[in-house]
Amino acid sequence: MTKKIPVVEKILGANETLAEKNRAVLDEHGVYAINLMASPGAGKTSLIEQTLPKLAERYRIAVIDGDIATSIDADRAAEAGADIAVQVNTGGNCHLDAVMLQKGMEEIDFTKINLLLVENVGNLVCPANFVLGTHKSVLVASVPEGDDKPYKYPGMYRGVDALIINKIDLLPYIPFKMDYFRKGVEVLNAELVTFPISCATGEGVDEWVNWIIAEVEANKK
Amino acid sequence: MTKKIPVVEKILGANETLAEKNRAVLDEHGVYAINLMASPGAGKTSLIEQTLPKLAERYRIAVIDGDIATSIDADRAAEAGADIAVQVNTGGNCHLDAVMLQKGMEEIDFTKINLLLVENVGNLVCPANFVLGTHKSVLVASVPEGDDKPYKYPGMYRGVDALIINKIDLLPYIPFKMDYFRKGVEVLNAELVTFPISCATGEGVDEWVNWIIAEVEANKK
Repeated sequence: MTKKIPVVEKILGANETLAEKNRAVLDEHGVYAINLMASPGAGKTSLIEQTLPKLAERYRIAVIDGDIATSIDADRAAEAGADIAVQVNTGGNCHLDAVMLQKGMEEIDFTKINLLLVENVGNLVCPANFVLGTHKSVLVASVPEGDDKPYKYPGMYRGVDALIINKIDLLPYIPFKMDYFRKGVEVLNAELVTFPISCATGEGVDEWVNWIIAEVEANKK
Repeated sequence: MTKKIPVVEKILGANETLAEKNRAVLDEHGVYAINLMASPGAGKTSLIEQTLPKLAERYRIAVIDGDIATSIDADRAAEAGADIAVQVNTGGNCHLDAVMLQKGMEEIDFTKINLLLVENVGNLVCPANFVLGTHKSVLVASVPEGDDKPYKYPGMYRGVDALIINKIDLLPYIPFKMDYFRKGVEVLNAELVTFPISCATGEGVDEWVNWIIAEVEANKK
């Protein structure tokens, strides 16, 4: 008698299942979505403020901002030209999850949108553990945080598709060893595309914006 | 017939119970302990490096460093003169809890120590939810993080006993409105004692060190 071998497919957890549903909604409407993650104050909102005007003629853009409290970030995104900005307050939660993104997405008419920027809660640990259904994850690092962060927060650096190194205008005032930082990144994520930028001066922002355009156009095909 | 009214005392969770045990060990040996919390890169380790030499003649000091990975911070504390430095790697966890502190404390001979500095995982959300058994909690904020952080991370700012505002040497290069920042703090925590400092230049460190001395001495009585 042959023993029956049960074959168990990968069971997705609740968050992964809902993330797939979010992705399906986005893809149905041809909307490309990016999940922006960072420490508190690394410059996610400033990056969005720099990015929106440079894409305004080309795309219609929605922003979903995750924060424990306030609508400061969504207000700034709206001010900077987002076609719609939605604030999700997590009520103490330290990250966005697929449920929260879904709630935010319900406020958006995706027939009128090409691009969705999601600004996660400022946290270099927990957001990396919750997929949302976005197409790419981008980490915003910043010079004042120090050059040892890839070594100390490997989970976050390992899991992202692109890396912004923000606040390079402060390099003259801070002992930040770029080689040491990049070496730490390379060990974790050798293929990571990297954009050194300054949201204060605008330096390097065009390269990042061109990457988004290439991503959005490739997603259309 | 009188209805029976059940009286349920406050039930401590597992973490609170263990935190009380940690405190009992500290108090038994007359050791005063501080829990340092902050965003990644706000300067907790730099603050410890500035603090240890100024207290070296007066106290024998242990440091317990919490990080997801590496022993970079404990190495720096040892280099700066800690009598003993213990690195606790959280294995992906985004905060220290009372169990992890207990494990770290087991490595220390408290008969030879007066002061314990605990450096929590860099995170402006989760560590605020886990008491450790230390006597005071101190938040290290930093100028490059931006002046809106008290508004966006109220749980952390509400729960601490003292606030360091680090990297004030960068104020000339960053649009940080100190009044706006302080107003946000005051709403949440009106009595909070605050120390503007620069770990790069040493400015303001003496006031912070004098506060520690006053706390340790008051705890002896």
